Amino acid sequence: MTNSPIEAINVEPRLLCGPGPANISPEVLSALSKPLLGHLDPDMYEILTELAAMTARVYQRDEGDGMTLPISATGTSGMEAGIAALVEPGSTVIIGVNGYFGRRLVEIANRYHANVVEVEAEWGQAVTNEALLEALAANPDARLMAVVHAETSSGVRHDLAELGAAMKDNDTFLMADCVTSLGGIEVALSDWGVDYAYSCTQKCLAMSPGMSPISISQRALEFMRSQPKPNTFYLDPQLLEAYWLTRPPAYHHTLPSPLVFGLHESLREVLNEGLEARWARHAEAGGYLQAAMAERSMELLADPAHQLPQLTAVLVPEGIDGAGVQKQMLREHGIEIGGGLPGAPAMWRFGLMGYNANTATADKVLAAFDAVMADAPTLAAA
Amino acid sequence: MTNSPIEAINVEPRLLCGPGPANISPEVLSALSKPLLGHLDPDMYEILTELAAMTARVYQRDEGDGMTLPISATGTSGMEAGIAALVEPGSTVIIGVNGYFGRRLVEIANRYHANVVEVEAEWGQAVTNEALLEALAANPDARLMAVVHAETSSGVRHDLAELGAAMKDNDTFLMADCVTSLGGIEVALSDWGVDYAYSCTQKCLAMSPGMSPISISQRALEFMRSQPKPNTFYLDPQLLEAYWLTRPPAYHHTLPSPLVFGLHESLREVLNEGLEARWARHAEAGGYLQAAMAERSMELLADPAHQLPQLTAVLVPEGIDGAGVQKQMLREHGIEIGGGLPGAPAMWRFGLMGYNANTATADKVLAAFDAVMADAPTLAAA
Repeated sequence: MTNSPIEAINVEPRLLCGPGPANISPEVLSALSKPLLGHLDPDMYEILTELAAMTARVYQRDEGDGMTLPISATGTSGMEAGIAALVEPGSTVIIGVNGYFGRRLVEIANRYHANVVEVEAEWGQAVTNEALLEALAANPDARLMAVVHAETSSGVRHDLAELGAAMKDNDTFLMADCVTSLGGIEVALSDWGVDYAYSCTQKCLAMSPGMSPISISQRALEFMRSQPKPNTFYLDPQLLEAYWLTRPPAYHHTLPSPLVFGLHESLREVLNEGLEARWARHAEAGGYLQAAMAERSMELLADPAHQLPQLTAVLVPEGIDGAGVQKQMLREHGIEIGGGLPGAPAMWRFGLMGYNANTATADKVLAAFDAVMADAPTLAAA
Repeated sequence: MTNSPIEAINVEPRLLCGPGPANISPEVLSALSKPLLGHLDPDMYEILTELAAMTARVYQRDEGDGMTLPISATGTSGMEAGIAALVEPGSTVIIGVNGYFGRRLVEIANRYHANVVEVEAEWGQAVTNEALLEALAANPDARLMAVVHAETSSGVRHDLAELGAAMKDNDTFLMADCVTSLGGIEVALSDWGVDYAYSCTQKCLAMSPGMSPISISQRALEFMRSQPKPNTFYLDPQLLEAYWLTRPPAYHHTLPSPLVFGLHESLREVLNEGLEARWARHAEAGGYLQAAMAERSMELLADPAHQLPQLTAVLVPEGIDGAGVQKQMLREHGIEIGGGLPGAPAMWRFGLMGYNANTATADKVLAAFDAVMADAPTLAAA
């Protein structure tokens, strides 16, 4: 790098229809550049209180049942915060693994020296609750059962409500990865008995990446308080609670105010739209895209009984250069779609999330896909 | 919270002249709302490569000496990432403590089960390098020596260059908290032999809060690679390196693209201004404010030989309601100044950082301060 003046970056707008980030509304984009507010400003406290309450409503965490707030870091930080807070070295943790993010849960639980019991299913299949409950019967002292509610790497939905009901009288805590589900399909933490959930902001909540909303049940919160301090300071929910929710607040970190303002605006849009209307919108858009893919004789990865509407994994047909198709979608049409994560079969991942969850956006993606696929033989020869 | 439509938040602009966040330029504010880019977009890779190189230049970390990149979380995450990566349970860590952030280093090192040796000084005083080197002589196997280069809670500068020179032939790693120093006073990591440094984005770099630039020397990086994996996954520098700097990248987390774009713009401004010109600007603005405070018979907390220009801690005179003055500055003049953090003597903290480091801003703050102090007896009676 020389000492000549550095140029400002020029970002070409994209239609973001991969696994996330998704596009955000003009109002949310504009909220990101509201004037900064300090983390100890009295006006900021009011925003935080309201933001935490809005997050709890989207998670359907009942008032008085534990706590809900966003961590100032991306989705994986919420995954780690839960493991760090609830697991001690040697604790047994049962984890459902049917894709990349179940595998990441295992990796983090291992780093925290848990005794990990993996319950696996193939990519595209759901881990059955029967298999998870068998593992629990074999490990009745398990501290934690963790599943991925919406596996971003494959488009598979887990029957979380059913698992929660089956674990109702159990001391084992239930953790759910709601990264891709929150705001796109039903999530009802208190009704379902989910003790710890984490999500992100850049998918069905339609905000930029940067925060991780977490939610903890009352019983898990009480357990947490009885435990020694976790190693992690940045991701300790008790320290976050003391800043976000206790008044007067105890300083923990300097809030990224642009992300706070953006998230406030996006949650406002979610709640003003209404949760059921929003889920219906995602169902309609996803169903439309999936039917269109079937009409094109494209094979979907996910078991149809567990197909998420917001994330559609399409197997790359034999002889087609999948990465080449992605590149042409981006360079010729300005549309981002995803490929497979490490360990996955060859696939594309199409997301219709948040602001993009509508059939008009699906039509744009399909038109570009058709145009690119018309050249597919050339790609296969490359 | 009822189900009536939720209002958008309305943020009154502030002049942010406390310990941070500081105001940012209109260009940086506008960069926060550029269109989102995905974390695996080829255009994003180019931005990341350039951003990491710019961050290294601001830290004065030589090319080829280790690595430099920003973590997607606020300043404290950089503090924790260094401890997590370099310290094992039982490792001896010598920490200089003369304020709130030295105390936080102790707290985090304790959470990671280090054997912590504290070397203390009073608030306002610098921890002497003599005392630190004595502690090192008494603990020659210490893994880490950690000091706060610019103590945000008191306005005190540590003689980091001198400490680095004295530790040149030592195996003990040197860590420095550069949260308030980077971009405001000289930082020269490679020349000074600093093995690990962390900072934030919302002070002298003049970006919003949300990221933590870290920098690791080559020898510390090699040591880190020889160690077992740290517990933390989100804050593991090796995983961050594999995403940020290795090509093709290995996905780690979804980048907060607004913060990436904002930081790119702010570092561009720092480097185009020139590091020495920027330090001179901070020195001039801070010196001007400090002289004005002396003219008003206000007592500064910091030892004059170690006074930072960018952060001025002023003792609240006997009988004055310090919090009341802060509140009036905010409500009547739209100016944020800081108070003392827990454990501190009664003080105000005035920051002239980044975009705000100029005498015109100092004049605005002083005019408001004079107006509020004119009512001070009333405040004292309250």
